[in-house]
Amino acid sequence: MKAAYYEGNKRFSIGESVVIPPGPGQARIEVTYAGVCGTDVHVFLGHMDHRLTPPQVVGHEAVGTVAEVGEGVVDFKAGDRVVLRPTDACGTCPSCEKGHINICPSLNFIGITSPGAFQGSWTVPAHLLHKLPDDVNMVHAALIEPLAVAAHDVRYGEVTDKDFCVVLGAGPIGILEALVCREKGATVVVSEVNPSRVELARELGFDVVNPVETDLVKYVFDRTGGAGADVVFEVTGTQAGAEVMTRLPRTCGRIIIVAIFAEPMMVDLRTILWREYTMIGARNYLKEDFDEAIRLVAEGNLPLDRIVSDIRPVDKIQETFEDIVGGKADFMKVLIAASAD
Amino acid sequence: MKAAYYEGNKRFSIGESVVIPPGPGQARIEVTYAGVCGTDVHVFLGHMDHRLTPPQVVGHEAVGTVAEVGEGVVDFKAGDRVVLRPTDACGTCPSCEKGHINICPSLNFIGITSPGAFQGSWTVPAHLLHKLPDDVNMVHAALIEPLAVAAHDVRYGEVTDKDFCVVLGAGPIGILEALVCREKGATVVVSEVNPSRVELARELGFDVVNPVETDLVKYVFDRTGGAGADVVFEVTGTQAGAEVMTRLPRTCGRIIIVAIFAEPMMVDLRTILWREYTMIGARNYLKEDFDEAIRLVAEGNLPLDRIVSDIRPVDKIQETFEDIVGGKADFMKVLIAASAD
Repeated sequence: MKAAYYEGNKRFSIGESVVIPPGPGQARIEVTYAGVCGTDVHVFLGHMDHRLTPPQVVGHEAVGTVAEVGEGVVDFKAGDRVVLRPTDACGTCPSCEKGHINICPSLNFIGITSPGAFQGSWTVPAHLLHKLPDDVNMVHAALIEPLAVAAHDVRYGEVTDKDFCVVLGAGPIGILEALVCREKGATVVVSEVNPSRVELARELGFDVVNPVETDLVKYVFDRTGGAGADVVFEVTGTQAGAEVMTRLPRTCGRIIIVAIFAEPMMVDLRTILWREYTMIGARNYLKEDFDEAIRLVAEGNLPLDRIVSDIRPVDKIQETFEDIVGGKADFMKVLIAASAD
Repeated sequence: MKAAYYEGNKRFSIGESVVIPPGPGQARIEVTYAGVCGTDVHVFLGHMDHRLTPPQVVGHEAVGTVAEVGEGVVDFKAGDRVVLRPTDACGTCPSCEKGHINICPSLNFIGITSPGAFQGSWTVPAHLLHKLPDDVNMVHAALIEPLAVAAHDVRYGEVTDKDFCVVLGAGPIGILEALVCREKGATVVVSEVNPSRVELARELGFDVVNPVETDLVKYVFDRTGGAGADVVFEVTGTQAGAEVMTRLPRTCGRIIIVAIFAEPMMVDLRTILWREYTMIGARNYLKEDFDEAIRLVAEGNLPLDRIVSDIRPVDKIQETFEDIVGGKADFMKVLIAASAD
């Protein structure tokens, strides 16, 4: 089986996937699909070299089948289909002690700070695996990790079927948030400027506003009888998003910060006070969010086929990343078929 | 009885307090004390002329005695000692419908958008009055309105006796927040640069850090075993405060925005996400916060004498405001003795 090694400076090399027998508490997985995350693109572009040790296999949105388990592993056996929750926390720091293991400062983010899933054979801590339901579609299951991000964000938004939600930015996470909000019965407006993403969000049945063409604030207040949105998800990471996010919510509404902002932004704290907004940062996920994402995939109500733009074999990873970075296709989510030969 | 009329352009005139017989649902109060709020100073400086109709009596932090009541008022009678909750909401807008009457866009803030308390006789809606306990000290009771602000902020902070709180800015509201947090059993650190406010906060028994002299972030993390603060109150309204507020909290900690920022600030949204902070805007108060403030004053545990810097007769209001603006004294809270002749 093959592996894609990030060599640094926008280069992957293709080599053999080293079969590492699982030690105590570990499981060896044969990876079926591993999704390309925006973080992997940052890796490719060299932005995360300080956290990696090239040549290194990356990738963390993975599903596969257990090949063998190490000593002491009783919850999994060969043949089980699994998804990995790739965040391994220390368990003893002040964050972990309060249960916020997603924010552990010593977090081992598997696929970034340790070897990842763009390879056929992958040996990982078994306690981070979740078993998949028998009949789940493995392409859909490859979206469980980003869907868990969305589930986490929507949980922090306390979204109910009475809520009016605005999602700023319709990339993979934004679209998945919109889908999870709609699944909860909420009304959803998506704001997006990229024409192909606007088109996809419309195809998925969302009301989409291009804020360059339409006054988003007026649209939301008109739609809500002058009240404003219950929950706003900021997924753009831009100054424009940081500016409009405080103009959309209702009194005491919620703003969920999802995007990773590259630098501090101008934020209207006066309006946050004046209308008593709650702004919450939402990072990664916890176990319960993975469980929720698995449940959503198993239910089969989400149009996840439309989110997967393409499936590429692992030995085509170099051109795949070049295509993504070069904007050669209107990619939403690309999966790497990691065990393909 | 006298009244102080704001004439515009940093001028008060002294005239007669017009005795207005209370109409249906109203009560006429003889004002004992009315505190000078930072908002009144903004009025004096001309910053709020768009919300006033000079010559106008201002002032809204008032205690007094009921002189007479209008038709239909059954909860109050002449002789009752009362405090006014000066926010009269419309009751029908989307904010009011959800109970957020403090954020009603049509809010009549009595003492700003309608005549205020720097006068001997004051006719007001009776439904906004709260009866004072029999033995309450009226000087202390004059602090109920700002204390209700503090109680509101601390309630939004969900402060408990296990919490480590940092108050950024030790003006009247910041000091009252620190006192309320301490009353709840929390550990409190106060950050302040003004030497006289540093001194007062120390006299009140607080750990005070001057962030110009001491590394506040290091101090807080050292004091909390590397965890960070549970709750941070931003009461400075400055860029320095907006910058440090995201560096102090623990994982999933809370930031309460109390200061009215004059303009948008640079805010580190990345850290809000990365450490999953919750930031909440806290404005004014609700009825329950007034009840809590009255309870705190009646209990008598707070050192409120130290918060009242001076009591001035109403006909000395011009020089009082000039003294405050000119920094002639280390004022914390000045009361106007409104019925003094």
